[in-house]
Amino acid sequence: MIVVMKAHCDDKDIDNVLTFLENHGLSGHPSRGVERTIIGVLGAVGPSGTPGSIGGINPTIGESLECLPCVDSVLRVTKPYKLASREFHPEDTRVNIPVPCVSQGTMQIGGAEVVMMAGPCTVESEKQLMTTARAVRNEGAVILRGGAFKPSTSPYGFRGMGEEGLKLLAKARSEFGMAVITEVMTPTDVPMVCEYADILQIGTRNMQNYMLLDEVGRTNKPVVLKRGMSATIEEWLLAAEYILAQGNRNVILCERGIRTFEKVTRNTMDISAIPLIKRLSHLPIISDPSQGTGQRDLVAPMSLAALAAGTDGLLIEVHPNPDEALKDGAQSLTIDQFQSLMPQVQAVAQAVGRSVLTE
Amino acid sequence: MIVVMKAHCDDKDIDNVLTFLENHGLSGHPSRGVERTIIGVLGAVGPSGTPGSIGGINPTIGESLECLPCVDSVLRVTKPYKLASREFHPEDTRVNIPVPCVSQGTMQIGGAEVVMMAGPCTVESEKQLMTTARAVRNEGAVILRGGAFKPSTSPYGFRGMGEEGLKLLAKARSEFGMAVITEVMTPTDVPMVCEYADILQIGTRNMQNYMLLDEVGRTNKPVVLKRGMSATIEEWLLAAEYILAQGNRNVILCERGIRTFEKVTRNTMDISAIPLIKRLSHLPIISDPSQGTGQRDLVAPMSLAALAAGTDGLLIEVHPNPDEALKDGAQSLTIDQFQSLMPQVQAVAQAVGRSVLTE
Amino acid sequence: MIVVMKAHCDDKDIDNVLTFLENHGLSGHPSRGVERTIIGVLGAVGPSGTPGSIGGINPTIGESLECLPCVDSVLRVTKPYKLASREFHPEDTRVNIPVPCVSQGTMQIGGAEVVMMAGPCTVESEKQLMTTARAVRNEGAVILRGGAFKPSTSPYGFRGMGEEGLKLLAKARSEFGMAVITEVMTPTDVPMVCEYADILQIGTRNMQNYMLLDEVGRTNKPVVLKRGMSATIEEWLLAAEYILAQGNRNVILCERGIRTFEKVTRNTMDISAIPLIKRLSHLPIISDPSQGTGQRDLVAPMSLAALAAGTDGLLIEVHPNPDEALKDGAQSLTIDQFQSLMPQVQAVAQAVGRSVLTE
Amino acid sequence: MIVVMKAHCDDKDIDNVLTFLENHGLSGHPSRGVERTIIGVLGAVGPSGTPGSIGGINPTIGESLECLPCVDSVLRVTKPYKLASREFHPEDTRVNIPVPCVSQGTMQIGGAEVVMMAGPCTVESEKQLMTTARAVRNEGAVILRGGAFKPSTSPYGFRGMGEEGLKLLAKARSEFGMAVITEVMTPTDVPMVCEYADILQIGTRNMQNYMLLDEVGRTNKPVVLKRGMSATIEEWLLAAEYILAQGNRNVILCERGIRTFEKVTRNTMDISAIPLIKRLSHLPIISDPSQGTGQRDLVAPMSLAALAAGTDGLLIEVHPNPDEALKDGAQSLTIDQFQSLMPQVQAVAQAVGRSVLTE
Repeated sequence: MIVVMKAHCDDKDIDNVLTFLENHGLSGHPSRGVERTIIGVLGAVGPSGTPGSIGGINPTIGESLECLPCVDSVLRVTKPYKLASREFHPEDTRVNIPVPCVSQGTMQIGGAEVVMMAGPCTVESEKQLMTTARAVRNEGAVILRGGAFKPSTSPYGFRGMGEEGLKLLAKARSEFGMAVITEVMTPTDVPMVCEYADILQIGTRNMQNYMLLDEVGRTNKPVVLKRGMSATIEEWLLAAEYILAQGNRNVILCERGIRTFEKVTRNTMDISAIPLIKRLSHLPIISDPSQGTGQRDLVAPMSLAALAAGTDGLLIEVHPNPDEALKDGAQSLTIDQFQSLMPQVQAVAQAVGRSVLTE
Repeated sequence: MIVVMKAHCDDKDIDNVLTFLENHGLSGHPSRGVERTIIGVLGAVGPSGTPGSIGGINPTIGESLECLPCVDSVLRVTKPYKLASREFHPEDTRVNIPVPCVSQGTMQIGGAEVVMMAGPCTVESEKQLMTTARAVRNEGAVILRGGAFKPSTSPYGFRGMGEEGLKLLAKARSEFGMAVITEVMTPTDVPMVCEYADILQIGTRNMQNYMLLDEVGRTNKPVVLKRGMSATIEEWLLAAEYILAQGNRNVILCERGIRTFEKVTRNTMDISAIPLIKRLSHLPIISDPSQGTGQRDLVAPMSLAALAAGTDGLLIEVHPNPDEALKDGAQSLTIDQFQSLMPQVQAVAQAVGRSVLTE
Repeated sequence: MIVVMKAHCDDKDIDNVLTFLENHGLSGHPSRGVERTIIGVLGAVGPSGTPGSIGGINPTIGESLECLPCVDSVLRVTKPYKLASREFHPEDTRVNIPVPCVSQGTMQIGGAEVVMMAGPCTVESEKQLMTTARAVRNEGAVILRGGAFKPSTSPYGFRGMGEEGLKLLAKARSEFGMAVITEVMTPTDVPMVCEYADILQIGTRNMQNYMLLDEVGRTNKPVVLKRGMSATIEEWLLAAEYILAQGNRNVILCERGIRTFEKVTRNTMDISAIPLIKRLSHLPIISDPSQGTGQRDLVAPMSLAALAAGTDGLLIEVHPNPDEALKDGAQSLTIDQFQSLMPQVQAVAQAVGRSVLTE
Repeated sequence: MIVVMKAHCDDKDIDNVLTFLENHGLSGHPSRGVERTIIGVLGAVGPSGTPGSIGGINPTIGESLECLPCVDSVLRVTKPYKLASREFHPEDTRVNIPVPCVSQGTMQIGGAEVVMMAGPCTVESEKQLMTTARAVRNEGAVILRGGAFKPSTSPYGFRGMGEEGLKLLAKARSEFGMAVITEVMTPTDVPMVCEYADILQIGTRNMQNYMLLDEVGRTNKPVVLKRGMSATIEEWLLAAEYILAQGNRNVILCERGIRTFEKVTRNTMDISAIPLIKRLSHLPIISDPSQGTGQRDLVAPMSLAALAAGTDGLLIEVHPNPDEALKDGAQSLTIDQFQSLMPQVQAVAQAVGRSVLTE
């Protein structure tokens, strides 16, 4: 349910509505737009920490709300996702990330500036990570990616360096001033990963690992939520809703390719998800053309396509020597290729009225 | 790697090979067939409990093994899954389940007898569970299904009764003598669910939740591993390999429908997965026509189809009053419908040389 | 629109309704059930032979119809397909096929008896065809399949023997008394193929070749309409509607596998399409497990699965020497394999209350 | 098979090779590059006009060819498509289209300039077509699209104005100087459509209508070949090969969305097909964001994405009053929307080093 306030209302009017909601066991979430404030309403959080049901809101509450002074109208949210929906929160959400290497010390994902995240698929060694971090930083990337915990389709594959990998990422951060994004795979690891990372990544295989979503929802860290490999747009936004419902509003979606019948590419990157998400939701969306295609020579054209379609950022795998990578070398750019990509990224960003934050 | 022993070899010969393997840092897994014994070989388990890589076996070891007396030949396993492959273990695996209500007190999944598992999608109340359990037991089901922890696509959906639900399941077990199968969703819940359940279920959304697979792999409980909704056969067997690699050999696969472009049904049940799994693996496979179709009137024909194609069991949702079910009522059979299904199941099982264990 | 007649009505009452419809530019299609007759109503056929639009029926006509004596009620058909829908024609359609080798000289597809259609994928030579025809006839097949015009994914592949192949099929028919089914690929070939064949087959790639559907719709020959490789159930029934709308009611649907992400099999055979079609339509449905799987060892289990799910017939590729087949040898049964399959087919058919017509 | 000539060879050397090939029953197809000439070799065309098999080339021919003076080396083409492969023809193919309204009277598809094709989904009336044509021409479109023969999923849907529609298209061409692209659906209509159209379109449902491909292959008209809705890249290129193999080299591919599990959009537009086709083939590729998404508000971002990924042109549905369109109004741009799109198209084209030909 959404309460639309009258145009001239002030903070006191809003507080009145919030108090009314509280008194009826509901929670209100104000969203202050330029012209109007709207207040999203959810059922109260249940006993054992479970979020309250939307369905449970008594319909007569709506009528009572409409009688309050300064309330213009009350609308029901028609989508199954509520907090994630654009109806509920009409303005674009911008997620703040502390990034020492940029002039302001912080940046926003979801605004006019496009963010470049780059680094190795997997942290393999100090030398590999530092070489890559230095190189991508030099070219303008401000966020360093690198997996310390890696989901491997085979139990005999490399599963990452674990905490040691996290420590190397933290070292790279302090050396190059980049923010760090890395994957967390299970609820009990969340506190440890939070200690080292600036952004938590939920991988495609865990998009519906609900207890993990709950857990990252209870932190305040920005979360990049990758789309499940065969998730519909609605399921993806419902997964985001899990995180939002626990109180963490710093959710960034990431398109990384879906599964189709095609055999030449590893995945089929769904570029149309970008404008669709922008229509249905207020959350920022970034794109991963490395996972999205699985092929190095498709990374550049698909990066540009994602930008042209409105992506808020790119997450790109770069490796100093892709042919010797422990994982996913075939989809990693060389440092030279990343270097050639950057001016193209800037040109297309500019053509669609965006810029690339590099310092 | 697989060591094929000569036809006349005895236990001492086998022990010789096992000792040889151990001395070279490898582990041997004998499989005694009617005519021959073969020994599957894996790399040794690594330091922090991670299973050893197959790739790491020194190829000269194979040549040395072939020189041992009583070794006929040494073969490499060509599939990425090893312990799960039929090459590695040519005989059908039969998983033992303690079932008080059957005459022998135990049954095997994967043998000539087909097993009927039935019950509500979700445990909702003592009355609902007991009514259903009594009814399905009366009709011949010997294993009771029922969810206490439920993955819900929406955070506002019902997520199950939790431990209280498990207690009700245990109560139904002690009252009706049925074994109990129920889902476990996160590694930290494994010990608790093990306390109450006879079979752990890994749901479709968790097929690639590797830390959960590791954790159930460290128990000795039978595990039903549902196919991921867009998992290939190879990915599914690799997920089984995770459990097997930790030492738990009691893995039962469960086909539950895959995601396609079709909109009339919730999923498209892939019946061909049954004979395919039988060809590629030695593990038993059961079928879930309720999830597999999402529609009550398709459950009976798809149950019979699965049987005709060779399934080792059926997992069927039954509810005393499906229209009032908290979850998935549209795909639950009424008790009457389950009653009509049983004789059809028996007729088709018989037509393909199987029988249905009901007591 | 459907006119439901009162229970006691006679032929004169029905004629009255038909005349009324004609006078209003509509056509009526009576379907005499055991208890009641219903009359399906379509808009009149348009000027240039195009079928009339359903949408164009004036809604007041329905009210006028309800005032006629003996009319019980008037219903709108809610599905986009009309003549193909079960609402429009509640009784099962049975398609008559002249089959000299069966005792009655004719058989019905869609009744209690299951029909076995077998033969080579492609007619390659007189010897190959006659050998196969003799063998499958000996085992009980009554309809001979064989392609004379073959859709080949590559322009350099074998595209069939053309009319010469049709002549060989006709020769086999006269020698063994079997009916012949063969594919027609383009409208201009329809008269020629009709001359030689008893059943026309529309292949998966032509399911939406609308001018071909129109053309076979203008004949009276039974038509087997294969499902498009990524066609939804609704699109498939709409393709059938094209044929029905031209006046040919002898339409038999054929499930032959759909395209999914799975790579081990050529297609994923959608067994659930069988009971779904039975619910939504009155048309018979047969199954092609050879195309449906692409793998010889899956043909037997999937044949049995299709039968258990309610298929009205099986279309199976058999080749005297599959390894030398010009097309699709990997999915063809040997004659021995077909021989072993037949008793299994009979056992499962019996278990679901059907029988197999073999003479 | 491909014959690579030495760097210094002249026309006489090439003729020698062609004569040698002819004498061995083969055909040679020279492709003169800046540095070298290569000659693609195909088996001779068979008796009844069927193209010769590649597989049938005697391997010793290759050895003999390598002994000819000026032949550097002989390579086998590893892909199943030959004439369509980049191996066979390393330079980009540019297809010439006569376009009266552009300054040179002709344009190339596949070069540096991007082409804009726009117009209504379906020709509905003279007024609708002329209004749309004038408007899109004013904004810079140089090719007019419009369906006279329309594939309709339902037999009761509008199937186009037929030849009358073609005549209107020809009238618009003479009035506005635009080239005309329109669909042809069946072989017997090819001569009539050729009379009126500058570019023949093969629709998604007919991508594997092989007799239609053969027929358009026997003309010299440029052909836009839309991707089948679940066609792999390889199948699509093999369909192009059908046209090429008949001698028509003016083939332009068109990506128009594939079928996936997603329900919000009509199709999922596979932008990655653009750079993939550029890698695997020398043929131009254009994009249809209207069919590709089915939703008006996604047309602009997906047009820009396609451009950024390297498309050679855009095919866009525009209607003066989309809400009253007989077909596909939901995906048609209004004239105003098309007007706003054009400067964005120009900006992104420029950012990737292309320009848009508008006059």
